[in-house]
Amino acid sequence: MLELIRSRRSVRKYTSEPIRDADIQAMLEAAMAAPSASNIKPWEFVVVRDRDLCRQLADTHPYSKMAADAAAVFVVCGRESESRHWVEDTSAATQNLLLAAAGLGLGAVWVACYPNADREGYVRQLLGLPDTLRVLCLVPAGHPAEVKSPRTQFDASRVHYDSY
Amino acid sequence: MLELIRSRRSVRKYTSEPIRDADIQAMLEAAMAAPSASNIKPWEFVVVRDRDLCRQLADTHPYSKMAADAAAVFVVCGRESESRHWVEDTSAATQNLLLAAAGLGLGAVWVACYPNADREGYVRQLLGLPDTLRVLCLVPAGHPAEVKSPRTQFDASRVHYDSY
Repeated sequence: MLELIRSRRSVRKYTSEPIRDADIQAMLEAAMAAPSASNIKPWEFVVVRDRDLCRQLADTHPYSKMAADAAAVFVVCGRESESRHWVEDTSAATQNLLLAAAGLGLGAVWVACYPNADREGYVRQLLGLPDTLRVLCLVPAGHPAEVKSPRTQFDASRVHYDSY
Repeated sequence: MLELIRSRRSVRKYTSEPIRDADIQAMLEAAMAAPSASNIKPWEFVVVRDRDLCRQLADTHPYSKMAADAAAVFVVCGRESESRHWVEDTSAATQNLLLAAAGLGLGAVWVACYPNADREGYVRQLLGLPDTLRVLCLVPAGHPAEVKSPRTQFDASRVHYDSY
């Protein structure tokens, strides 16, 4: 488990090989296995594989260019009206999605949209999302075309025992 | 990996057995292996094992009573001034912490403090945290005294393909 957590790196280059439907399903199951406050599960997911849409998602902001080459872009959304903890809950789901990708031998990266209204609005309009749905992030994913070593970023100066 | 993600459940009952130092270290390494926006890593962790402090953390709010019996309470904090994505980043770190606990055979649960100012303030005062540090959540942890089955909460109605 710890090895897998360390092996999850931000992968931004992908081959042209599609992601198997079973792997997309497994990633979504992992995402929805996340905990949520009061078990409200305030999340929705849009899986974008249409090439034109992926290219348009790449224009969401300057750091989303890799979406154009992703086999799929997972758009993680939150139902803000249902929970004041929607950001935490959808973030936990996103982390599970990224770990599942790593476990399946895929590469993926978290590209933030929230809290930038322009970026959220661009994605909302492109995909026809309701105005009430918040757009936490894009997760472009695919078979990795770059290799990164596992690592922890452990920093003892960020840990305190019993008091600060 | 997917099995482990499914096996992570919210565990609120613990035996009196301590958590080994090596396991606490492994959990912290997992937490800090999370991704963060611009790799800012805006997190800090307080590991509380002092029995009096655990009992006082149990009074943070009505759903934190299990902290009194936890072998350790991990307090996940965010440096708000350093990143507008501190909630997402510390949430990803918390999810890694929970998964690491599950992988080590431990039980843990995410108890939100943010965005409740009273709860954050109570913890801040109790542990002597600086006013600038946000308190995302408590993660009481220990050897599990309850058994929960693995599960996904997959819901096909929350998934959309290419457009909403």
